[in-house]
Amino acid sequence: MWRMGRQDVLDLAVGAAILGAGGGGDPYIGMLMALQEIDKGREITVAEPSEVPDDAFVVPVAGMGTPTVLIEKIPSGRELVYALKALEGYYNREADYVTPIEAGGINSTIPLVVAARRGIPVLDGDGMGRAFPELQMTTFHLYGIRATPMSMADEKGNMVVLDTIDNYWAEKIARVITIKFGGTAWIAIYAMKGSEFKKAAVWGTLSLAIRIGRAIREAKERGRSPIDALVEEAGGFLLFRGKIIDVKRFNVGGFARGEAVLEGMDSYAGSRMVIKFQNENLIAVRDGSPVAMVPDIIVVVDQETAKPITTERLRYGLRVAVVGIPCSEKWRTPEGLRVVGPRYFGYDYDYVPVEKLAGGA
Amino acid sequence: MWRMGRQDVLDLAVGAAILGAGGGGDPYIGMLMALQEIDKGREITVAEPSEVPDDAFVVPVAGMGTPTVLIEKIPSGRELVYALKALEGYYNREADYVTPIEAGGINSTIPLVVAARRGIPVLDGDGMGRAFPELQMTTFHLYGIRATPMSMADEKGNMVVLDTIDNYWAEKIARVITIKFGGTAWIAIYAMKGSEFKKAAVWGTLSLAIRIGRAIREAKERGRSPIDALVEEAGGFLLFRGKIIDVKRFNVGGFARGEAVLEGMDSYAGSRMVIKFQNENLIAVRDGSPVAMVPDIIVVVDQETAKPITTERLRYGLRVAVVGIPCSEKWRTPEGLRVVGPRYFGYDYDYVPVEKLAGGA
Repeated sequence: MWRMGRQDVLDLAVGAAILGAGGGGDPYIGMLMALQEIDKGREITVAEPSEVPDDAFVVPVAGMGTPTVLIEKIPSGRELVYALKALEGYYNREADYVTPIEAGGINSTIPLVVAARRGIPVLDGDGMGRAFPELQMTTFHLYGIRATPMSMADEKGNMVVLDTIDNYWAEKIARVITIKFGGTAWIAIYAMKGSEFKKAAVWGTLSLAIRIGRAIREAKERGRSPIDALVEEAGGFLLFRGKIIDVKRFNVGGFARGEAVLEGMDSYAGSRMVIKFQNENLIAVRDGSPVAMVPDIIVVVDQETAKPITTERLRYGLRVAVVGIPCSEKWRTPEGLRVVGPRYFGYDYDYVPVEKLAGGA
Repeated sequence: MWRMGRQDVLDLAVGAAILGAGGGGDPYIGMLMALQEIDKGREITVAEPSEVPDDAFVVPVAGMGTPTVLIEKIPSGRELVYALKALEGYYNREADYVTPIEAGGINSTIPLVVAARRGIPVLDGDGMGRAFPELQMTTFHLYGIRATPMSMADEKGNMVVLDTIDNYWAEKIARVITIKFGGTAWIAIYAMKGSEFKKAAVWGTLSLAIRIGRAIREAKERGRSPIDALVEEAGGFLLFRGKIIDVKRFNVGGFARGEAVLEGMDSYAGSRMVIKFQNENLIAVRDGSPVAMVPDIIVVVDQETAKPITTERLRYGLRVAVVGIPCSEKWRTPEGLRVVGPRYFGYDYDYVPVEKLAGGA
């Protein structure tokens, strides 16, 4: 167990946005809320999965919906705890630990706020190891853990508890409720035992995000390339450097789909990259051949600062680097690829790990 | 307490459709299901509100959504009990009584099925005294009873419990869930104490529906006019006799709105009536002047048989009688009219009771 300080939160926000693979929403609001907890004298305690007793009650908490809505209605912090309370009431048991459901954007920091407010530890791990757009896209799901009973709360005080026949139904029903709530819901979901979390979670993603954020910051302080630092700390691969010359967007089934076209620079001069995204970056194709594909993490960052650029902020003229980071091994099974592989998202590619495609291994 | 027999169920189906004011769905499926319970040897016991202990736990149960969907997926009976069980689990208390939420169509008979299956009585009363399209349109609501916690179940086994900040939010959230469920949900809602039911319910509507159905049947057996029998038994007013010469339908905000134009016959020859509806019949205008308006019950029946014609079955050429029946006094307060008066439905009329408009009183 260790305590997260202000600098950790700042670094986490940068690193989580990198792991968010272009999705997960802007981490800014969540970061501010976590800092506020520290400033109020509350403690953010992080526990390692290995420390968790088998029979502990672990509850992932998250925000669901459109993160951009949050900028207009910043949560007070109190409403984040509503959903957790509702689920605890349903189970008649208090959570021993909260945990992120995904790594990326606001959902890396929301659990910190809940943990601080409730005085319980947040676990260093999550159910994706990156960001994904749907509730069943978790390693918890792969290990047969049920998303429901799950609870949902809005900032007005409305509350819903779902108990669905499978995790896909949880996603379907929760999605329409989120829309009726005004675009954002606070949820508690995939409640499980400590033994289940240890088996099913992607471990160490909070500390990884902090290390990535710290490496980028320190590289800048020391005049080193923050992109190199990012690639090194994340165990990733530089896939491209270039300028965005076109961004197309289309709305498909409520999801923000699109693609960005990049023109190469430096050692990539004369090359071209197309990045296809749906909330998150899903496929990076360089000169006609894929060099990284979902579930591996594809992240677009500012060429100078390594600041991650979410898919909704991709625009003409940005000079960027594209980095590929291997996903958790848990996603690389046939079952994992059925849930989040290229074909689930409608791309006709067999999944090949980024280290093979880009690393030439 | 009294036991409902086969003939009672048959009469109830006719009378409930009359009180349904053109809405509430076709009672046919619900009637078959109730008969099936009797044929299986289960008992449908009806209790009078006056018999209910103050601290009894009373739970209205109902179907929500598009009744026409039911014709394609007839409920097994088991799923009707799911929602009740979920709510009982939430309250950690078993229902002592079930009750209809409305009088009309399928929702008069669904509670009979649940009562028979659970071996508890159904109360002779409901929360509308007629049918209405939205969850907050109940006399329970007028008396400050909360619709939530409410539960919803579908035939697949999905379950939701809502706890909203007010009854309008319950309607909003439950409506989108019903759509995601495939068009129909089984709900348990407005759980309350016996003392609350006695105060807030419209009493005697199950027995009234049976009496109306019986009066119509007996009139036919004896060669009397079934319309006269209906008017007499319901304490209503004959508003029109005529032929439907036009029906317009438009979809507004998910509701089936429309109007039917009738050309007078017999003593109404030369007159014209326009009936405006939204699921239920809402306003009847004769030669330019309203003769009945919501919340009073306006029902269109076959001129020969007095068989009620729901709004979705209104069509050119039908020879019909239009009958107005006074609603419960509970609706005739300023608060009641705010919830279900003509202006709530977008009609610019001050409410005038049908007995004044049509009875000339």
